[in-house]
Amino acid sequence: MTVVRPENAHQARLLRLLRDDGPRSRAELGDGVELSRSKLALEIDRLVERGLVDTAGLAASRGGRRSSIVRIATRTRFLGIDIGATSIDVAVTDGELRVLSHVSEPMDVRQGPEAVIGRALDLVGKLRADDVAPGVVGAGVGVPGPVSFREGVPVSPPIMPGWNQFPVREAFSAELGCPVLVDNDVNIMALGEYWARWRDTAHLLFVKVGTGIGCGVITDGRIHRGAQGAAGDIGHIHVPDHDDVICRCGNLGCLEAIAGGGAMAARLSEAGIPADNSRDVVKQVRDGRPEAMRLVRQAGRELGGVLASAVNFFNPGVIVIGGDIAHADEHLLAGVREVVYRRSTALATRSIRIARSTLDDRAGVIGAAVMVIEAVLDPDAVDQAIAAGG
Amino acid sequence: MTVVRPENAHQARLLRLLRDDGPRSRAELGDGVELSRSKLALEIDRLVERGLVDTAGLAASRGGRRSSIVRIATRTRFLGIDIGATSIDVAVTDGELRVLSHVSEPMDVRQGPEAVIGRALDLVGKLRADDVAPGVVGAGVGVPGPVSFREGVPVSPPIMPGWNQFPVREAFSAELGCPVLVDNDVNIMALGEYWARWRDTAHLLFVKVGTGIGCGVITDGRIHRGAQGAAGDIGHIHVPDHDDVICRCGNLGCLEAIAGGGAMAARLSEAGIPADNSRDVVKQVRDGRPEAMRLVRQAGRELGGVLASAVNFFNPGVIVIGGDIAHADEHLLAGVREVVYRRSTALATRSIRIARSTLDDRAGVIGAAVMVIEAVLDPDAVDQAIAAGG
Repeated sequence: MTVVRPENAHQARLLRLLRDDGPRSRAELGDGVELSRSKLALEIDRLVERGLVDTAGLAASRGGRRSSIVRIATRTRFLGIDIGATSIDVAVTDGELRVLSHVSEPMDVRQGPEAVIGRALDLVGKLRADDVAPGVVGAGVGVPGPVSFREGVPVSPPIMPGWNQFPVREAFSAELGCPVLVDNDVNIMALGEYWARWRDTAHLLFVKVGTGIGCGVITDGRIHRGAQGAAGDIGHIHVPDHDDVICRCGNLGCLEAIAGGGAMAARLSEAGIPADNSRDVVKQVRDGRPEAMRLVRQAGRELGGVLASAVNFFNPGVIVIGGDIAHADEHLLAGVREVVYRRSTALATRSIRIARSTLDDRAGVIGAAVMVIEAVLDPDAVDQAIAAGG
Repeated sequence: MTVVRPENAHQARLLRLLRDDGPRSRAELGDGVELSRSKLALEIDRLVERGLVDTAGLAASRGGRRSSIVRIATRTRFLGIDIGATSIDVAVTDGELRVLSHVSEPMDVRQGPEAVIGRALDLVGKLRADDVAPGVVGAGVGVPGPVSFREGVPVSPPIMPGWNQFPVREAFSAELGCPVLVDNDVNIMALGEYWARWRDTAHLLFVKVGTGIGCGVITDGRIHRGAQGAAGDIGHIHVPDHDDVICRCGNLGCLEAIAGGGAMAARLSEAGIPADNSRDVVKQVRDGRPEAMRLVRQAGRELGGVLASAVNFFNPGVIVIGGDIAHADEHLLAGVREVVYRRSTALATRSIRIARSTLDDRAGVIGAAVMVIEAVLDPDAVDQAIAAGG
């Protein structure tokens, strides 16, 4: 397969500027990079030749000769594929990471890798059929479990029977004929939130509270994966005073077993209030059921206790809360804020922001596209991440 | 002041190779960078001209013409200055980060910035007087409190009266005439441990258990400082079942108020066992006093509980334990290991290493020198860190 990538750091920097800030005149681009006029023209010409950028029209004059507008080639396409526990989302973006089309459908990840990947590829085919652009430059894939980023395979994922060590990256890249990167779904959601809304802060936590609880960690604008790719596994942090609760991981008193949507649904059922899953918990909250509101508020406090420690340890600029349970009005966030502000240090909470996700289903597909566009724009950085990560 | 820095990324990469792996032949250097033979020769010549590397002698033949040996200029000097709560350490290193001389003396940081910085500069003068090398290329400084890395000033440091917002970086650079970087002492100790012993892992935690408790966080080989430069402040994480203990920060049940050396010394005194500080606690343990051993072991467990959460959240490859209390034989580490292995996930602890610091007093000065040599070798990376950090 032919992979179109920038040839040098100057080209990568030009593409980044165009991706992040949109079309600009040559003169404006020149302000953003330290290149001589002739060197700038040379690099832009090379990018045009290789199909990575387009030049079109003329910008308003800044005094001298009018400068032409440069933009990422409008036919550049990236794919974001977010495989969740119970759904698949697929999106096509352009090189400026605008979502051109997005399809979401229910799907049980327990059907196994062949069925799920096959269906994801069908959805890609459908979206691509309506698209005028010829090729896809890269695809990012998220899956709901731990991933060896280097190998592109799930590693002992608890809720994905049949997927352990399945070559997900190879399966997609063989069919799509482009570079593919695979990561944990919460990591890519964190990257999507960061990229779409929070680029003014370098360090972000994205917490997904659905059936289980997971966290994506962004440091210096990049996903922190940790030594085994297991970073962000806050669902299995021990919380005090619940050693009577057995978690599916086999330990006692894990956060997820107390404050996860699955656990809350079970608790409501026991109390005679019908709830099969985290969405039912949200429904009960929205219907004004006090038991459900109290439960979600208390779950927020338990999560807040864990996040207060993470705030002291990691000092993030923002915490974004997503997942089904984040839709339970403000009850979850209220509990989180209450404990984080009480328990974290004054310095670490001086200007921290705790916000609900506004991207929802799109966080994953956008993050997946960001992940692969980063790889295309900066092959070295991703090679390093692969070398360093699990 | 004239700052000698590499002129481009190739030169920086060559200097890094020479720093990390020691002197090498031109041929071996060529294997480590992707440069043509002529371009390589050009960059090495430029580095020699600018006094950054020396060439000398001839390497063993690899078949063709014998290749000359290249090394970081033997007269390159870096300073590491570690200002602790009760001591100052100053060291001079060469460009390969060998400690050429090191002096340590007691000093109370509460004497204020003028007195302490003045004394540190005296010590630098003494060490430099015996040194044949002409100049210092850079100096790194650690202080025992939160630091705004960007501004090079302490920020509301709890145990450093008179230092808040004092221009530490400017005070040193005005006298030394070279670039100076200032950071929290535990951060530079973490960097020193990482550089000296653990470069095979990308993500490291260094925990200092002295009078108080702090943590330095290394991710992808760099210090993670967080949004306000407050990352690693684990001493004020809340631990369960101790809400009757008031911490000096004003909160209840902080780790440091229970497991710090100061707290343990107070606890021993109350029990009629003489102990004024963390060193006395260690002495009692070494004298075989059961109450002291039990106390340190239990402190290890409390610290282990906090670190178990950090392991799930951050997934480090290694945890290094330093500070006075780490000298209490294996009692502290035993408690830490016991709880980390019980409470963290199987994946995150699969190959984690939990080790005692072997650098001791030298961790800080080595880390300070590493910090500034990184800046000299990679101005961009440090500019980014300054832009991103507090």
